[in-house]
Amino acid sequence: MGFWKSLLLGFNSPTASAVAVAGRSLEVPDQGHGEVYTSDAATDSRIFFSTDRTLDLYELEELCSSVGWSRRPLRKVRKALQNSFLVVSMWEQRGKRRRLIGFARATSDHAFNATIWDVVVRPSSQGQGLGKALMQHTIKKLRNEDISNITLFADPHVVQFYEGLGFNPDPEGIKGMFWYPD
Amino acid sequence: MGFWKSLLLGFNSPTASAVAVAGRSLEVPDQGHGEVYTSDAATDSRIFFSTDRTLDLYELEELCSSVGWSRRPLRKVRKALQNSFLVVSMWEQRGKRRRLIGFARATSDHAFNATIWDVVVRPSSQGQGLGKALMQHTIKKLRNEDISNITLFADPHVVQFYEGLGFNPDPEGIKGMFWYPD
Ligand SMILES: CC(C)(COP(=O)(O)OP(=O)(O)OC[C@H]1O[C@@H](n2cnc3c(N)ncnc32)[C@H](O)[C@@H]1OP(=O)(O)O)[C@@H](O)C(=O)NCCC(=O)NCCS
Ligand SMILES: CC(C)(COP(=O)(O)OP(=O)(O)OC[C@H]1O[C@@H](n2cnc3c(N)ncnc32)[C@H](O)[C@@H]1OP(=O)(O)O)[C@@H](O)C(=O)NCCC(=O)NCCS
Repeated sequence: MGFWKSLLLGFNSPTASAVAVAGRSLEVPDQGHGEVYTSDAATDSRIFFSTDRTLDLYELEELCSSVGWSRRPLRKVRKALQNSFLVVSMWEQRGKRRRLIGFARATSDHAFNATIWDVVVRPSSQGQGLGKALMQHTIKKLRNEDISNITLFADPHVVQFYEGLGFNPDPEGIKGMFWYPD
Repeated sequence: MGFWKSLLLGFNSPTASAVAVAGRSLEVPDQGHGEVYTSDAATDSRIFFSTDRTLDLYELEELCSSVGWSRRPLRKVRKALQNSFLVVSMWEQRGKRRRLIGFARATSDHAFNATIWDVVVRPSSQGQGLGKALMQHTIKKLRNEDISNITLFADPHVVQFYEGLGFNPDPEGIKGMFWYPD
């Protein structure tokens, strides 16, 4: 069994794919749930994406609280993942150890529009282009499903981050609005 | 068979409910797919809401084109309705004749958030409070499902309409953003 194949078997995702190159390698074709983003044979480590929605919810909520988001009832988180159109998780694997380092999900009508929620990268992994890669992966998946209208609601401090990815705020004066009970 | 009962049988929606009063009567409790908004015994007419998603797609697209929206492939419209969390239609019934006069739908993760799309009232029925009633009905349905975060993207000329319903534009600086391919 080759080196990369044996590594692949370490993946929890049943359909993960990898590239048999040393050093950093970007964007390999998707072959199912998993997709390698970078891999480094020297350190036996890689970063990969998965669209498997059966995540460990404790690990997900721990990731979210690492950026200061408040805890949510796991029952509701589970329901939200089940009913999201797309769930993307980003993992760092070193040897056999796997760690959740990023997450995004989208609701959709499966036809015209999608709205991206809960975009997050673990603080220790920020500032290395991984948030950008996570979003590009998410956009690619939505485009593959023929969704033409990709939207989101951006906190003020991340508007520029999304602009760098091709998102426009208030295009043609369209306003994002939130309902609040009286 | 009573007068109201026989009228009720004219409804296409199997679980429609009505109020046995003459003249205009607002907001009766929901008992399923259908809910009467106003009824007028003198003219044998009423306006009611339905959440039945098996609409006549030609009638829906005709409603949308009555406000100038461009035609969409019916195959995609059907898919979008099937995969919306909530579909609300508003009907005017006179005797046995029924006409689609309003529409709204929402995507959702069934847990935290919902996004409302395709809000429309037929031009001949506008300016009578029906758009407001349609939106209030939609919000009530979403709240009944324990959705706390209700959002939408408003065209510039209808921001005030939504503000009157309790929607805030850009709360705490949150920006609605749309992705456009390069
Ligand atoms: C927003 C977030 C996902 C970005 O992830 P990241 O991995 O640090 O981002 P990247 O390293 O891929 O940055 C990509 C580009 O965006 C820029 N960028 C990143 N964060 C930014 C920010 N907050 N404001 C402006 N630009 C930002 C980077 O400088 C980089 O620019 P470049 O392509 O010109 O070099 C991450 O900071 C995060 O999880 N924040 C906390 C949670 C959050 O606020 N989520 C958004 C809720 S709407
Ligand atoms: C927007 C729309 C649904 C409103 O429906 P409507 O039945 O005419 O609205 P209502 O009569 O219930 O109006 C409710 C309130 O909103 C106000 N209002 C209605 N349309 C408005 C507008 N375009 N701008 C500002 N205020 C508006 C009304 O004056 C009324 O105010 P009041 O409560 O103080 O009396 C309807 O005009 C429509 O279908 N427009 C075309 C499609 C469209 O633009 N949809 C929205 C896409 S984001």
